Amino acid sequence: MERALRLLLERPAGVPRELARAMRYGVLGPGKSLRRLLVLAGAEACGGSASRALPLACAAELIHAYSLVHDDLPAMDDADLRRGRPTSHRVFGEATAILAGDALQTYAFQLMADQDKIGVSPSIILQAIHEMAVAVGARGTVGGQVVDLESEGKEIDEKTIEYIHTRKTGEMIKASIRCGALIGGCEGEKLEAMTRFGDQIGLAFQIVDDILDIVGLEEDLGKDIGSDLEKKKATYPSVLGMEESRKTASALVESALKQLSSFDERAEPLRAIAEFFLARTN
Amino acid sequence: MERALRLLLERPAGVPRELARAMRYGVLGPGKSLRRLLVLAGAEACGGSASRALPLACAAELIHAYSLVHDDLPAMDDADLRRGRPTSHRVFGEATAILAGDALQTYAFQLMADQDKIGVSPSIILQAIHEMAVAVGARGTVGGQVVDLESEGKEIDEKTIEYIHTRKTGEMIKASIRCGALIGGCEGEKLEAMTRFGDQIGLAFQIVDDILDIVGLEEDLGKDIGSDLEKKKATYPSVLGMEESRKTASALVESALKQLSSFDERAEPLRAIAEFFLARTN
Repeated sequence: MERALRLLLERPAGVPRELARAMRYGVLGPGKSLRRLLVLAGAEACGGSASRALPLACAAELIHAYSLVHDDLPAMDDADLRRGRPTSHRVFGEATAILAGDALQTYAFQLMADQDKIGVSPSIILQAIHEMAVAVGARGTVGGQVVDLESEGKEIDEKTIEYIHTRKTGEMIKASIRCGALIGGCEGEKLEAMTRFGDQIGLAFQIVDDILDIVGLEEDLGKDIGSDLEKKKATYPSVLGMEESRKTASALVESALKQLSSFDERAEPLRAIAEFFLARTN
Repeated sequence: MERALRLLLERPAGVPRELARAMRYGVLGPGKSLRRLLVLAGAEACGGSASRALPLACAAELIHAYSLVHDDLPAMDDADLRRGRPTSHRVFGEATAILAGDALQTYAFQLMADQDKIGVSPSIILQAIHEMAVAVGARGTVGGQVVDLESEGKEIDEKTIEYIHTRKTGEMIKASIRCGALIGGCEGEKLEAMTRFGDQIGLAFQIVDDILDIVGLEEDLGKDIGSDLEKKKATYPSVLGMEESRKTASALVESALKQLSSFDERAEPLRAIAEFFLARTN
């Protein structure tokens, strides 16, 4: 998978050198790689081949990378570190970071539209592209980031927090699983079970993220600990308290695993990811 | 068409108000609307229906709008005016402008993937999405913008200028025409003729743009006259001189029109656009 991404990001003819470097920097290197795993595990759970899901898995990773590069910009979170390394705009300058993010998003849709490489029905591919676009657009990731920025320094309620988390992270996690499942041939009842699974682990993921932001160690996370708290960002622990947040995350993962009860052993990787979501320390 | 765009940009459930406003601001209002016309005229020229090409025409406009919003940012061209109005970041702030641009790009791909609305073969739609993505990504619009920014204040040769113009504008103009043609059922020889037509008017468009930047009136263009010259930006007149630039543009349009000789009267709108490219004063 890492090799697939590396190959995709080798400088193709006509791409300016600095832009190609910034695109690679945003995608490769240390990272959790969760979204690509979700696409692949979603496809496998439904009996599909991981190789057919590979372009969509790479696309999910490129989209995630683009959103991080833009979120880190001075006009937004103004972050200096990401995954333990200087953020893209600190290395390449703001203009190149913005443009690299833009190009990563475009490249993701280019990969998803590569029907020869994916090799399932064009109509299914279009459905996957459409779902991914909805998940990462104005109603999804971008909308969540807007409300997150608007909420900084304000007292906010649980509903707003859930909006931010669902949009900023949850929708994309769900879409990754669903896109994998679609490419894997999933439909009907099974696709609906996958959707509920995705909703629940998506929210659990973000709650755990919030908890880790408070208790985690700086070297584990590679970003400033407590940075969200300092900026009074919307987090679950700040609204529900730590204990209740942990319980909520745990209940969500338990419920998510039940959704997969009708899936056979090919859903093991997906189950393992859900458990990892809860157990992770960074 | 304006109505179609307006409808598409009405605030859908779950989109933050400020984000929806910034997206509308970037797309609606005064403007040349060329790209959408090219998609529609491309489809009509091939005997296709404009209504099937409408989602792609809107998508082309959203992508163009996103690229302008990002190009105007302080980290890039740092423009205060666009089409006679304050630029997006001057109205909504930098963070919202970046995110609105991001969401406009995503929304474009969402529209293009809406197979029910488009109603032609999914495989053709995927081809159109793929071509549009290539045209506006790292090898296209974004790559052109990177080299343009890198060239500021430097002496550059004709080759570099052509690279910038082809990527920044030409590829997108060609892709708009080709996507329309594909949706319109065009293939083989005719599609190739459309491609050559697109290449030639794309370049002509940018040469005329450069000329107008020098001779145009500020109120016509709605941006600072001579601004490219001041920043020593790469332009045709600065390399070829005015007279030679005019001749080149004229020859390109003439040659483009010849490419359409085997098309019937349904290609009239496309021919009219090519002539407008040469005659326009803003």
